[in-house]
Amino acid sequence: MAATRPQRAPITSPAAATVFSTVLTQGPVSRVEVGRRTGLSSAAVTKAARPFIEAGYLEELTSEERTGPGAGRPANPLAIKADREFFLGVKITDDDLIGVVCDLRAQVRVARHHPLTSTAVPDVVAALTSLVADLITPYRDRAHCLGVAVSGDVDQTTGVVRYSPFLRWHDVPLGDLLAEATGLAVRLENDVKALTVAEQWFGEGVGVTSFALVTVGTGIGCGLVIGGRLVTGAHGVAGELGHVPVGDDQPCHCGGTGCVEAIASTSAIVARAGMPMAEAVARARSGDPAVRAVFAEAGHAIGLALAAMANLVGPERIVVSGEGVAAYDLFEEHVRKAFTAQAFGAVADCLLILRPLPFEEWARGAAAVSIQALFRH
Amino acid sequence: MAATRPQRAPITSPAAATVFSTVLTQGPVSRVEVGRRTGLSSAAVTKAARPFIEAGYLEELTSEERTGPGAGRPANPLAIKADREFFLGVKITDDDLIGVVCDLRAQVRVARHHPLTSTAVPDVVAALTSLVADLITPYRDRAHCLGVAVSGDVDQTTGVVRYSPFLRWHDVPLGDLLAEATGLAVRLENDVKALTVAEQWFGEGVGVTSFALVTVGTGIGCGLVIGGRLVTGAHGVAGELGHVPVGDDQPCHCGGTGCVEAIASTSAIVARAGMPMAEAVARARSGDPAVRAVFAEAGHAIGLALAAMANLVGPERIVVSGEGVAAYDLFEEHVRKAFTAQAFGAVADCLLILRPLPFEEWARGAAAVSIQALFRH
Ligand SMILES: [Zn+2]
Ligand SMILES: [Zn+2]
Repeated sequence: MAATRPQRAPITSPAAATVFSTVLTQGPVSRVEVGRRTGLSSAAVTKAARPFIEAGYLEELTSEERTGPGAGRPANPLAIKADREFFLGVKITDDDLIGVVCDLRAQVRVARHHPLTSTAVPDVVAALTSLVADLITPYRDRAHCLGVAVSGDVDQTTGVVRYSPFLRWHDVPLGDLLAEATGLAVRLENDVKALTVAEQWFGEGVGVTSFALVTVGTGIGCGLVIGGRLVTGAHGVAGELGHVPVGDDQPCHCGGTGCVEAIASTSAIVARAGMPMAEAVARARSGDPAVRAVFAEAGHAIGLALAAMANLVGPERIVVSGEGVAAYDLFEEHVRKAFTAQAFGAVADCLLILRPLPFEEWARGAAAVSIQALFRH
Repeated sequence: MAATRPQRAPITSPAAATVFSTVLTQGPVSRVEVGRRTGLSSAAVTKAARPFIEAGYLEELTSEERTGPGAGRPANPLAIKADREFFLGVKITDDDLIGVVCDLRAQVRVARHHPLTSTAVPDVVAALTSLVADLITPYRDRAHCLGVAVSGDVDQTTGVVRYSPFLRWHDVPLGDLLAEATGLAVRLENDVKALTVAEQWFGEGVGVTSFALVTVGTGIGCGLVIGGRLVTGAHGVAGELGHVPVGDDQPCHCGGTGCVEAIASTSAIVARAGMPMAEAVARARSGDPAVRAVFAEAGHAIGLALAAMANLVGPERIVVSGEGVAAYDLFEEHVRKAFTAQAFGAVADCLLILRPLPFEEWARGAAAVSIQALFRH
């Protein structure tokens, strides 16, 4: 049952949403500067900001160094009071749950794992409810929202997991089930899209109109932001970088041929190396040329697919991240080399950022989705 | 020198632009329906439409069959008076100019070729001015705008051709030169982008938020509309479908490897078949297996690249067009087969339209750009 809610972020108009999201993602920032970036008048910014200040979501910073005729309230920076509200995020995998509590700026305050012994829906709901109860205790009076990330085809508007191959779920109304069990406002999202939202609002995507977030691991996924908006695809599918063909006869589980995922996913590397991942990494690091070649081919395939994507949509930045840092030293050189060779003209100027992806990041992505959902009121 | 202009389309506010463009691209359509589609009130639609009716750009259709209480002016359809204004469009190639006059709905009224004996800038400006003078005569009092399409890197805002490999031009201020020579309002655009604009406003792109226009010929180009907007790329490059690698060791002029353009462009087919295009087409049609294989590989490469693009951005439709109908029968089956095999899940639902591209279409695209420029006032 939903408890009576304390006063929430007063996002009551488009101007309020614009001002609050600008300070949230780009602050501290002065009213004058908010006006400049949003096209709102100074008076409109002041009017929109006031309820947030009263509700404790924003504060006005004062600077003791201010001097001269330019000084005054419109020049004082507005800042988020990050601990005014907390957000829970949970990522569901086939063998465990990862949960976090984040503040308003999506900084992780606490993270916890919870093993899953079954992926039956009631078992997952029970385990997730228990994890949430555990996490929320110190934050109960200031945490009302839960974001949940699942791999697969997720309908964000209805909160239904339409299909998740890893969980073997079809049409599960997980949002409603969890809202009832936890009493929280629940948002579901596909896990790669959730990571992309976190990046767009609180990471490399801030202030950038186009970027791509690419995940390399069990699968190869991609969230694409173009013109400031996540590309969702006319038929509900987009960002399937894993199934871009890059010129190999390798059959892929999707029915296609030569897909990046058939060359560079964890299971593809395991199959091509003929040994478990940890052993493949160790052998490659110790110089085994056959195993090193498997990683080199994987990196090459990823680099070609990134170039294909960049040649098509020309993103400002690409962030490549993966389910652990394990193999980055074995991949990176080959990713960059293939990308640079295949990037067309000025596309080579696209900033390519490779970095590890701690598992908590997936849960943080889910929390970021629940922060973003504040703006859907 | 610019002549004194007669009364022009009164696009004086965002509401005026919205109403006029809705009727232009989707009309005839009633005021009620315009309101529904644009979110404007009925009064706002009526107010916005009035100056266009007075200036002769719109007319109200009356229906003699109207009966019952629902009838009345707001239900009368608004329609474009297509011959209220005419627009010139010219496509520049390395050996000729193609010019058209289009009406407001981008219907071609007249088309004309003009051979180019030199691609030196003054010669092209002189030839284009002469072609325009010839075309405009019967339309002079109602034609004020010229769109020009050039292959290569074109800066639409400044009217500068930054780089055109086919013309061997660098940083040519063609827009200013032509405005001075013709007295018309001139807009330049990259040729593939111009075709995409024509498609978005007057073709398969009407009422669709995402689609791709792909051109196959001397080069392989692509205009991508996502979220209703042409994707331009953070570094000025996007839609380079020709340089998506599709798995062949063929070196490409871009420095990459296995590019579609290195397999399926006209010159690639000529090189791979070892004979001129017309001969290759004839031989393939007569059943020569080696030459048929060259076309099959080209079609396969195009199909894979289309699937790569569709898997990434999920367009609603893809229009594939080319510099003539000559080889479509030899391509199409292989394009569709490779696309279907490689499209991921629901991406296979993307409508794939293959159709010829008469050369006048390029010039019509240029005219469409000058129609769209009405809305930049
Ligand atoms: Zn695949
Ligand atoms: Zn190339």
